Amino acid sequence: MAQEPLYERLAQRLRGQIQRGVLRAGERLPSLRRLGRDQRISLATAIEAYLQLEREGLIEARPRSGYYVRAASLPAPRAAAAHRAARAPQPIRNPALLGVLDVLGRTDVVPLHAATPALPLLPTAALSGAVSRALRRDPAAALNYAIPQGLPALRQRIAQRYAQCGADVDPDEIVITAGAMEAISLALRTVARAGDVVMLETPTYYGLLQAVAAQGLRVIEVPNRPGSGIDAARAAELLERHAVRAAVLMPNFNNPLGSLTGDDDKRALLAACAAHGTVAIEDDLYGELAYSGIRPAPLRAFDRDGATITCGSYSKMLSPGLRVGWALGGRWSSALLRAKCFSTVATATLPQQAIVEYLARHDFDRGLRRLRRALADNAQRYRQAIAEHWPSGTRVAEPAGGMALWVELPDGADGQALFEAALAKGIGILPGHLFSNRGDYRRHVRLSCGLAWDARTEAALRTVGRLASRLL
Amino acid sequence: MAQEPLYERLAQRLRGQIQRGVLRAGERLPSLRRLGRDQRISLATAIEAYLQLEREGLIEARPRSGYYVRAASLPAPRAAAAHRAARAPQPIRNPALLGVLDVLGRTDVVPLHAATPALPLLPTAALSGAVSRALRRDPAAALNYAIPQGLPALRQRIAQRYAQCGADVDPDEIVITAGAMEAISLALRTVARAGDVVMLETPTYYGLLQAVAAQGLRVIEVPNRPGSGIDAARAAELLERHAVRAAVLMPNFNNPLGSLTGDDDKRALLAACAAHGTVAIEDDLYGELAYSGIRPAPLRAFDRDGATITCGSYSKMLSPGLRVGWALGGRWSSALLRAKCFSTVATATLPQQAIVEYLARHDFDRGLRRLRRALADNAQRYRQAIAEHWPSGTRVAEPAGGMALWVELPDGADGQALFEAALAKGIGILPGHLFSNRGDYRRHVRLSCGLAWDARTEAALRTVGRLASRLL
Repeated sequence: MAQEPLYERLAQRLRGQIQRGVLRAGERLPSLRRLGRDQRISLATAIEAYLQLEREGLIEARPRSGYYVRAASLPAPRAAAAHRAARAPQPIRNPALLGVLDVLGRTDVVPLHAATPALPLLPTAALSGAVSRALRRDPAAALNYAIPQGLPALRQRIAQRYAQCGADVDPDEIVITAGAMEAISLALRTVARAGDVVMLETPTYYGLLQAVAAQGLRVIEVPNRPGSGIDAARAAELLERHAVRAAVLMPNFNNPLGSLTGDDDKRALLAACAAHGTVAIEDDLYGELAYSGIRPAPLRAFDRDGATITCGSYSKMLSPGLRVGWALGGRWSSALLRAKCFSTVATATLPQQAIVEYLARHDFDRGLRRLRRALADNAQRYRQAIAEHWPSGTRVAEPAGGMALWVELPDGADGQALFEAALAKGIGILPGHLFSNRGDYRRHVRLSCGLAWDARTEAALRTVGRLASRLL
Repeated sequence: MAQEPLYERLAQRLRGQIQRGVLRAGERLPSLRRLGRDQRISLATAIEAYLQLEREGLIEARPRSGYYVRAASLPAPRAAAAHRAARAPQPIRNPALLGVLDVLGRTDVVPLHAATPALPLLPTAALSGAVSRALRRDPAAALNYAIPQGLPALRQRIAQRYAQCGADVDPDEIVITAGAMEAISLALRTVARAGDVVMLETPTYYGLLQAVAAQGLRVIEVPNRPGSGIDAARAAELLERHAVRAAVLMPNFNNPLGSLTGDDDKRALLAACAAHGTVAIEDDLYGELAYSGIRPAPLRAFDRDGATITCGSYSKMLSPGLRVGWALGGRWSSALLRAKCFSTVATATLPQQAIVEYLARHDFDRGLRRLRRALADNAQRYRQAIAEHWPSGTRVAEPAGGMALWVELPDGADGQALFEAALAKGIGILPGHLFSNRGDYRRHVRLSCGLAWDARTEAALRTVGRLASRLL
């Protein structure tokens, strides 16, 4: 028998370390250069060994970052059955969506429910310094009104950032808002009237459903598929069949799926919207949080006639509490500014100045890189914990970005019951039915992988898994 | 001929000083005690002299503050003719109200248009210290989300303050907002739907008309009368005749009139609203800025069944740029919180903390007293400048609080033309037609007396007066 090649022996050793848990899910492997030096092998052999493990699904390459151990393999949640989608547009019917979700205000629970990066993952010290500097520089200006549209220096920064991912944005079409949710709410108020039909994804972020409910709009749902994103063909059919005023879409990392819609599907979605006079309102909140490190293009990058309203925020990248977001208004820009001016007048000044200061003095990309890696690592660690401690048959989406982890429990499970049991143990999770107009996804829960990874987080994941088994 | 009594000789001397401009409008006279000592007269004689001048309208007493020189007497603007009010509810028709008012964003003009206290009138240094302290104390909390309803400590303070003017408010019914305009916008979105009728005052703040326009509501107008406030009898007639969903009212210092509605009229307004199921939305933005120093009761103080939504803000008292206001929700509290949560999610955290810090460490009342006096002095100084430099026949409202000065120009004048001519000279004022749904008040302009009184302000008032004369 021929001796195994060198790379295979190396792969074998690493495989064993992964299987025994010496190398844990989410951990970074030595760099190729380092591996070569330590093991006294050629770079080519090191590459061959990692490629082999990658083919087996045990490790993954992340561009400009390195190789990481993947979690044990878990099946993905099943896509929403297109045939289950209601034929007719419906008002928001899920009663749980019509109130403020109490759990969101709880600070006494392990916040597996909160899709917000834990503060240690954010550049809190640098930002706090930026607030102080802004205040020192001109306290009077910091306490006075900003113009309704928002600080020009901030709009400039946002336009520059979008230019890097292929979207030509004029700073003058940007309206600064109190987070992405104000941007989306203004967009809906601007383009739609009570009774109008909007298209949302299923599953989708409950906040979007609530914004739709607040305005008395009706909803049709287009499936977002784990791993491949929005079903553009189905979207085109729906737009053909119904008079849809606006489509609120999360092509870049759907919350809760974490899926990325490909560029061809983005183009197809825009074309279908354009053909039917549907305004695309893009929730680009997670666009900068691609685990691959490659920022996907927003819909806006493919839009040639300014018919898209792209909404974003610094909430998930710098600070949720500063409440600074934006809308790229395109040809709706003046109307959005009016809606802003006639409701909240202007966004608070000091938070805008603080972000301008931060962006001028600190390396935004470096902070984002750190955050993205932490989220990607956590996604693998969570998946591993679920594989080990949750009931067999549990399915988990593999997010490509953002911080949501969508879990489908085995037949017979009840997401709401698990939510309640977890809360009783001091752990916050969200039941899946919140992510659907009609209260679908009864077997699902959404976890946030924005927490710092520590013993408490790990224990909470184990506890929820045990509760899920017990409830079956 | 009997010799004049002592008090009359003293009055004569003071009268001469006022007429020659030695004592200027808005200036404070010596205290009674001081006057007695300086002039070697009894306190009774000093009192008698001041009473005589007060009867002649030359000076005015301000409780707990002293005696002040009044401006030369000017007639008040005429009240809106009730018969001119449209019989039928109307959508917002004044095109000038449908866009953002460019002048509001101008920082290169003398801001006689901006109903905002100049920063020297606000406790800017103390507030800026409060921001720094809040940030130092807990930077992580400052950058994280506040709960949607707003910081409990801040709601506590607001409730305490309302208790002082006779309104029992539960901190749990308060929703913290991005200024009073968000509060009013949320209130309208909560209680009314597009097409519904709301009652507004005439004249009224253009921002209220814009909020109404943004929501596609229709308007009927009830006169607010210079000197006596909202015409409650007329309001009752209108509510009897039309199905009115909500009434957005400024009983405490209408902007632009500065008029105060009396307590009996407040009760009558509430009774009429209650009888017809009309929700009273109270804009209490200027309630703390009574020139008399006596904080008038809000409508809410007379409301026994929580049917009023009272909206206020720190914008005119501490800082407009922090964007912190509130709604006292009464029985609409949960619905308002939902509307807040489903649009802007939460008010920025650090601005809320900064205000809590300020209120805990500084004398809020002292700062308010200083501001109220500056505004009251300015109102007299402005009136004097108008008496001296504006065309004869100009009428000016005498505000009882707030910072608006409502000027009616003589027959043949055009407020819009004066606005444009002033702007061309680098001076911002607002044309009167902005304060009416139907573009009434073509001869009026509104000035802000929130500016610091200095040579520039004085020169600007003279210039606008000259322009007004020239345009006639």
